[in-house]
Amino acid sequence: MTDPNLIAFLDRLADSAGKAIMPHFRALDSIENKAATGFDPVTVGDRAAEQALRALINEHYPEHGIMGEEFGNERLDAENVWVLDPIDGTRAFISGLPVWGTLIGLTTGGTPSLGMMAQPFTGERFAGDGTRSWYRGPEGERTLRTRPCGGLPDAVLFTTTPALFKGADREAYDRVESQVRLVRYGCDCYAYCMVAAGFVDAVIEVGLHPYDIVALIPVIEGAGGRVTSWDGGSAAAGGRVVASGDPRLHDQILEMLNRAG
Amino acid sequence: MTDPNLIAFLDRLADSAGKAIMPHFRALDSIENKAATGFDPVTVGDRAAEQALRALINEHYPEHGIMGEEFGNERLDAENVWVLDPIDGTRAFISGLPVWGTLIGLTTGGTPSLGMMAQPFTGERFAGDGTRSWYRGPEGERTLRTRPCGGLPDAVLFTTTPALFKGADREAYDRVESQVRLVRYGCDCYAYCMVAAGFVDAVIEVGLHPYDIVALIPVIEGAGGRVTSWDGGSAAAGGRVVASGDPRLHDQILEMLNRAG
Repeated sequence: MTDPNLIAFLDRLADSAGKAIMPHFRALDSIENKAATGFDPVTVGDRAAEQALRALINEHYPEHGIMGEEFGNERLDAENVWVLDPIDGTRAFISGLPVWGTLIGLTTGGTPSLGMMAQPFTGERFAGDGTRSWYRGPEGERTLRTRPCGGLPDAVLFTTTPALFKGADREAYDRVESQVRLVRYGCDCYAYCMVAAGFVDAVIEVGLHPYDIVALIPVIEGAGGRVTSWDGGSAAAGGRVVASGDPRLHDQILEMLNRAG
Repeated sequence: MTDPNLIAFLDRLADSAGKAIMPHFRALDSIENKAATGFDPVTVGDRAAEQALRALINEHYPEHGIMGEEFGNERLDAENVWVLDPIDGTRAFISGLPVWGTLIGLTTGGTPSLGMMAQPFTGERFAGDGTRSWYRGPEGERTLRTRPCGGLPDAVLFTTTPALFKGADREAYDRVESQVRLVRYGCDCYAYCMVAAGFVDAVIEVGLHPYDIVALIPVIEGAGGRVTSWDGGSAAAGGRVVASGDPRLHDQILEMLNRAG
């Protein structure tokens, strides 16, 4: 069972990140461009939140490692490593949509062991430790459970945008999309949380960083779902990822993705 | 100036719709399929809300007409006609995402004169009368103003999904999408409200019904934006619609959509 102090600390981290971010949500003057070329938005809130999270971790768990999007890595050889993305879904964030979230994950011996998605505008938190998952928000407090979904024709599928998939990956993705009941684009980490909550059946993505997915793995798996790479291995390194609420659906999606075109 | 009683009545309608809908949001047992073929979800909440809205209108403004998605039309020859879509974004709704909304519009002499998008989960309301627009929600109360955007290379564009556009419409849409700074898919009525609030620059869609757009026209226009059909005429009948925060951008988008391929 996960140390209750760690779970309380997870909420404390989310409080701190939310406090740093919210003054910048829907504030038009806070947007910077991270790269001179292309479009890679990052907000002042993103940086302020990551600094706040790092300060709290270094104060309370100085032996733990940290992997973050904005400020690099510390002590990655530690047994416990925090994996942070203060604003996952920066495009939703800069568009004013409340479907971004703060991702806070913990790996133990390299395996995701605890994670939370916090959405401070809606006041929602989705958390899990791989064996159980829980929600707190306008709906009150409740256990998160994925829903059964026996096959692709019944599935609601999310991805950020089909434009992410190139070449053979696009063909593989299209094979799955063409079979499902409903597909929706956008919504980043929020879509994974809806898998954990039992309202969405699967998310398929490519090109993820570890900090995009590590926090979400214990939430979905604790709710009864599965998260793997497209080849069925660990998703903790990011890359090509599938998350499903029902393990039967997960097997079907992997089979379809890996079928020769 | 719009009759303050009508504005208060708009809030009362939104209260009533929210009360009817919210017990069904994120309740897995409330989803019906409207059509035996295809996928056209409609919830118990959608019907209950439209009935509640119709009852209030018939009680307080019995001479007004009503156009609704679920229960047809009444007195469409009246000077004032309410145009209702209790749950715009049913796919977001059934996926658990808080980016659907209740659309309540009023046309006077055939022209959209008052409108509101209410999102009861986030507690947000975006309303306008074509000359001014206002917001109430977790951010407090404030006036809605679109943001300046001089051209497509600076624009954030939304559409439900590019799959909506067929043939020449798809080519026209792709011409615009290829020029913008950022495109995002999904989010239905919420994206239009983000145009009014100054966080998104344009929305382009096709195949809209009047009840998908009438309520949003006074909100965007009251905030300084424009909403027209692709040929520059009234958008009140639905169909192919462009909404923009900056009239200069609107002109560019119309020109690009109508340019010979």
